[in-house]
Amino acid sequence: MTHPISPLAPASFPTLPPIAGLEAAIGRAGFYKHERPDVLLMRMPPGTRAAGVFTTNAVGSAPTDWCKQALAATRGGSRALLVNAGCANSFTGPAGDAACKRALEAAGEKLDIPAREIMAASTGVIGVVLDDSKIAKLLPSLEMAPVEWPKAAAAIMTTDTFAKGAGATCEIDGVQVNIAGIAKGSGMIAPNMATMLAFVFTDAALSAPILKTLLRQETETSFNSITVDGDRSTNDCVLLYATGQAKVPPIVDAKDDRLAGFRQALSDVLRDLAIQIVRDGEGATKLVAVNVEGAQSDASAKIIARTICESPLVKTAIAGEDANWGRIVMAIGRADQPVRKEMIAVRFGELYAARDGMVSAEYDEAAMSAYMKREELEITVTVGPGSGRARMYTCDLTKRYVEINGDYRS
Amino acid sequence: MTHPISPLAPASFPTLPPIAGLEAAIGRAGFYKHERPDVLLMRMPPGTRAAGVFTTNAVGSAPTDWCKQALAATRGGSRALLVNAGCANSFTGPAGDAACKRALEAAGEKLDIPAREIMAASTGVIGVVLDDSKIAKLLPSLEMAPVEWPKAAAAIMTTDTFAKGAGATCEIDGVQVNIAGIAKGSGMIAPNMATMLAFVFTDAALSAPILKTLLRQETETSFNSITVDGDRSTNDCVLLYATGQAKVPPIVDAKDDRLAGFRQALSDVLRDLAIQIVRDGEGATKLVAVNVEGAQSDASAKIIARTICESPLVKTAIAGEDANWGRIVMAIGRADQPVRKEMIAVRFGELYAARDGMVSAEYDEAAMSAYMKREELEITVTVGPGSGRARMYTCDLTKRYVEINGDYRS
Repeated sequence: MTHPISPLAPASFPTLPPIAGLEAAIGRAGFYKHERPDVLLMRMPPGTRAAGVFTTNAVGSAPTDWCKQALAATRGGSRALLVNAGCANSFTGPAGDAACKRALEAAGEKLDIPAREIMAASTGVIGVVLDDSKIAKLLPSLEMAPVEWPKAAAAIMTTDTFAKGAGATCEIDGVQVNIAGIAKGSGMIAPNMATMLAFVFTDAALSAPILKTLLRQETETSFNSITVDGDRSTNDCVLLYATGQAKVPPIVDAKDDRLAGFRQALSDVLRDLAIQIVRDGEGATKLVAVNVEGAQSDASAKIIARTICESPLVKTAIAGEDANWGRIVMAIGRADQPVRKEMIAVRFGELYAARDGMVSAEYDEAAMSAYMKREELEITVTVGPGSGRARMYTCDLTKRYVEINGDYRS
Repeated sequence: MTHPISPLAPASFPTLPPIAGLEAAIGRAGFYKHERPDVLLMRMPPGTRAAGVFTTNAVGSAPTDWCKQALAATRGGSRALLVNAGCANSFTGPAGDAACKRALEAAGEKLDIPAREIMAASTGVIGVVLDDSKIAKLLPSLEMAPVEWPKAAAAIMTTDTFAKGAGATCEIDGVQVNIAGIAKGSGMIAPNMATMLAFVFTDAALSAPILKTLLRQETETSFNSITVDGDRSTNDCVLLYATGQAKVPPIVDAKDDRLAGFRQALSDVLRDLAIQIVRDGEGATKLVAVNVEGAQSDASAKIIARTICESPLVKTAIAGEDANWGRIVMAIGRADQPVRKEMIAVRFGELYAARDGMVSAEYDEAAMSAYMKREELEITVTVGPGSGRARMYTCDLTKRYVEINGDYRS
């Protein structure tokens, strides 16, 4: 199916910095009826280290199970990545596990890399066993070449309406280091885990444990801080690869000050990709950042932010350009977190709708209406005297979301 | 605003059994711009006992705060009820509390009943202080008379498209006892508390503690087992009044066997009203019962049932008459409850879509498509070997829901 490009899409795909030694190929295995690439194969140079974060959905999927086991077995040694769109290979039992393994063995034979050093990622319909014979048939025609990022990002799309990429350049102890990443995701997007598929690459020589620590920490404020519909996929996965081509001095601790610039750059890339996913939220017409302040803890603030972001009544009001702050207050109240209702305030941009537990004296309907017509909204709520805070991103809930998801399989 | 009547509405308002001594009046105070009654005043005979369950939303509202305090102060002694639609008087601070109290004092003067023996319930827009002068102006024109249930139920509607009532007759120790109730609710409906407004009356002579125990227990499988959109209102409230006109023998323990028939009848009335609210879910075209079996506990089963019932992807698939069981599996997995994925089964009516952690061998797309066209659906999932089970009711998510809620205030 083809959808019109999201009105919130960036003007163009960004130019990503080069990651030395990376190769890729894309092709069409035929998981979709219509013409479109649906397979991405990537090869990394020897010495590459990898880390991943995966869905916490209890059902999971064959590819996420594979990645977790393979990363543990190889201690982060990974040389390749096989991604397919159109079939999630989730809830497919032992047959799905076997199909995943066969696909990786075929890819490994082509690349001359053991299967356990290849990560797998699948996205698409749940409950259908991966037809690995389609991948086996496609492999001989794939020619590995330097990565063309826009094409690689497009090959992993499902209901996405635009390809998503982000990159950054920074220094580690004076050595220039590059980061480039791609992601897909549009529906079944919820926080509290690695959400959707994202693959991020750096040329920095960093160990697997350091990659893992940084990835976990920075995922929290990026992919784990977005939500389109509160539905957490079975196949979510973010992988971070470090090819080691940029010879930075050995660093053994993720807390090392020399990683500050890298951490910031990684954080920027992950958040950029995460926000692009919200921008491509199914049916979205508004990008909304929700800030919660004054909560008992950051964790509590995040629960409140998520409740606001996932409230159908808040999301439909935003779609209708209605500054219905009463629904935001309702959502604060139903988050089951400690709040002081006489301190609750709700602000749209700089405009106060509510303050000190009541409608704000300075409430200006005309100014508020004008603000709500914007494409990007900033909602800030105060819930008490605490120091806990969180920032989460979401989109509005429109008829188009219902339309897209009422006939996904047909 | 007027909405077309829900396609899931019952054919007609039921005939409710008489509750001796009850009187009511309805009128228009003008909380809505358009012509419609928006106030219900009820009077109960001396000796009436009452119990209530109220929203657990932390923001709450002036009327629910009042009811909780008044019921505690009078130990369940309550003689009257004042309900208004069009203004929730929630998040209105001390000004809202004062307005609520003034309205009840005015009603008390008319009825010659102390204000603290009158319960208040409000429903409508959040954040607007109740204009009690409108109620004071209306009161002199209200003439108390035997209850006309359809009119009483209609006076408390907001976005409801039909008036909701249910009744039952049973015996306590050989004495015939009647139960009659009305409810309102259509959006901002979620479980885990007393949801929406419901007022239930019996002529049985039962103590306030017994009423409270029975109401709490039976609310769990009725109002606390429905969800339209997962958004829990600030004003939810279920009140149960016993006028004591049916002179049953004194009963001191809610566990008394002689209450079995009454408990069942009360349960039937509450569930009937609860399901009517789902039938009037904003934009609903399908009534869906979700059964969860094999969970670790009933509480765990209920969390899973709620996650399925509130998943936008499940709800939009149902709107599209798509038996997208993969999304149900996703929702089971994201409920963060102990499940055994190799035991997961999903059934639509008697048709198995999935079994033993995989698509079912007997899956029949044609039979499934035919089933999905029904107006009432029964979805049953097995999640493991446990004995925990739950049953929850929801409706589908349609474009109409988005439409209704995109311009509620305008």
